[in-house]
Amino acid sequence: MHATVTVELKPSVLDPQGKAIEHSLSSLGFAGVEDVRVGKLFRISLAESGQTRENVETQLRQMCERLLANTVIEKFSYTLEE
Amino acid sequence: MHATVTVELKPSVLDPQGKAIEHSLSSLGFAGVEDVRVGKLFRISLAESGQTRENVETQLRQMCERLLANTVIEKFSYTLEE
Repeated sequence: MHATVTVELKPSVLDPQGKAIEHSLSSLGFAGVEDVRVGKLFRISLAESGQTRENVETQLRQMCERLLANTVIEKFSYTLEE
Repeated sequence: MHATVTVELKPSVLDPQGKAIEHSLSSLGFAGVEDVRVGKLFRISLAESGQTRENVETQLRQMCERLLANTVIEKFSYTLEE
C-alpha cells in the first residue's frame, strides 16, 4: 500500500519560507503570484499485512500525530492507494 | 487560480531524511513501513490575469525549473485549479 501524507502549516500560522519564495518569484519576473505556502510531502510504502483499510488509516493518523506533523501549528492529510 | 506544486527527489537519488523517518517510525513501534521518501509541496495562489490555462502552465513549469526544483536531482509535478 502506498500512502501520501501532506503536512502544511495551519492557515493562521505565518510562513516566512513561503513569503521568501513569493518575493523570489516576483524578482525573477513572474507576475501575478499572490501567495505561496510551503508544506511537506511524505510518500510511505506500507507492507501488505492483511490489515483493514481502517486500521491502516488509524496507523497513518498516529504516525502524523506522533512524528510527521506538529499538530499545534500544522495540519495533515493523507491519501491511501492499494 | 490555485496551483499545487510537488517537488520530489528522483527515484535514483538517495533520501537520507526519508530513511531517518523510516527508522524513527520503526522505533515508535509502527511495523510494516517499507520505505519513506520526503518531498516538498508549494501552494501557489495566482492572480486572475485572463491568461489561457496553457500560458499559466508554462509559467508554472518555468517557476519549477528556475526556482522551486533542482531538476538535476528532483522531479516536479503540478495541478492547477480554477
